[in-house]
Amino acid sequence: MKILAVDTSGPFASAALMEDGAITHEIAACHGLTHSQTSLPMIGETLEAAGLTPADIDLFATVTGPGSFTGVRIGVCEAKGMAHACGKRIVGVDALEALAVNAFGFPGLVCPILDARRSQVYCAAFRFAKGGLPERALPDDALPLGDFLARLPRDEACLFLGDGLKVHFPAVREALGERAVAAPAAHAYLRASAACVIASLRADEAVEPLALEPLYLRAPQAERERGTRLKNAGGE
Amino acid sequence: MKILAVDTSGPFASAALMEDGAITHEIAACHGLTHSQTSLPMIGETLEAAGLTPADIDLFATVTGPGSFTGVRIGVCEAKGMAHACGKRIVGVDALEALAVNAFGFPGLVCPILDARRSQVYCAAFRFAKGGLPERALPDDALPLGDFLARLPRDEACLFLGDGLKVHFPAVREALGERAVAAPAAHAYLRASAACVIASLRADEAVEPLALEPLYLRAPQAERERGTRLKNAGGE
Repeated sequence: MKILAVDTSGPFASAALMEDGAITHEIAACHGLTHSQTSLPMIGETLEAAGLTPADIDLFATVTGPGSFTGVRIGVCEAKGMAHACGKRIVGVDALEALAVNAFGFPGLVCPILDARRSQVYCAAFRFAKGGLPERALPDDALPLGDFLARLPRDEACLFLGDGLKVHFPAVREALGERAVAAPAAHAYLRASAACVIASLRADEAVEPLALEPLYLRAPQAERERGTRLKNAGGE
Repeated sequence: MKILAVDTSGPFASAALMEDGAITHEIAACHGLTHSQTSLPMIGETLEAAGLTPADIDLFATVTGPGSFTGVRIGVCEAKGMAHACGKRIVGVDALEALAVNAFGFPGLVCPILDARRSQVYCAAFRFAKGGLPERALPDDALPLGDFLARLPRDEACLFLGDGLKVHFPAVREALGERAVAAPAAHAYLRASAACVIASLRADEAVEPLALEPLYLRAPQAERERGTRLKNAGGE
């Protein structure tokens, strides 16, 4: 089975191809170009290098969030479009779970944190049982960092990864001390290959492409601002 | 500091760029094309996406083996050539150690195995102390799989990764039972980003490019055959 996964939910854009359980191509880049310019060429290059077209893909996967609103929509639309055009199914992958896959086997709590702006992080926590996917310990949420840290158990090593690391790890370390560990650079960012791994183990959860929805933990900024405007107008 | 790492030592060709401790670009492909066709375009694409030229790189890194003799020479020559032309230093990275980096934090023995043909594996074993690079438990070697497994402790979980997994994991599982764990697909192959991580932590071990040597654990096939011919000729 051939799986193509796309992620544009965060600062990285990435694409990966899995054939019969093995990753055969992966590309990831974080260079400040907008994902709308980089993601489709990455997908094209991945398929071309493998001598494939979208019609050869058996299952599509895309990271549905949480993450950048615009970013999530780019990758979700690309993957939905390809799957719809080719009459194939699609698996939506949670960004925080995909990040947790990077920490396979870590003997403690795995804590992906993404910079959600507005003084919040998108966050969750997972543990690895023997092999397989990470098991969820805390649900996806958008929280002030301190509120998230207060929910963590007090006696367990905690591995942090994700783009929230850069801004927030000093505060994490101050709060948790030496039991807070930062993932090494090669593990810190979301990889489309992790989305392939999740999709391969959850192929039975694939849906018709038009049924796939982005995962938004908060209303987008435009909706929040509209809500505020309407509320203010109503109060006048 | 900008680090460019190249790997062509195994079935994957990969290139990665690290800037100030964070990976910003990574590409890896395993498509049966020879690395001499794929590796330089990957490096070019990586630099172009980042808006850089080789002269902007502060430190080069390349995987020196063990691995495919021809493969190792391609990546080592590319990286040595760029470093020499730009007057920069270079770090040689051990393929088995770079693979072990993938298993960051695993609470047992990390056992990279590469298919070395001739019924042997290139193999080593590592453990993760708190954070940082994996610590070596067994040296790099070229051994029949059974001889390697016999050297492993009998009471510890062992994570296997590397291209030897595909052929040898069933035999590993039969010998070690449930304490043998196979790395998930996204962790199973050597990534140039891991070479960046090692190079960044070992920048003080960088050498003049012309001093860098490939790491061969056995004489190449051509030399072995020549040795046999000379021995047979001498014995006639």
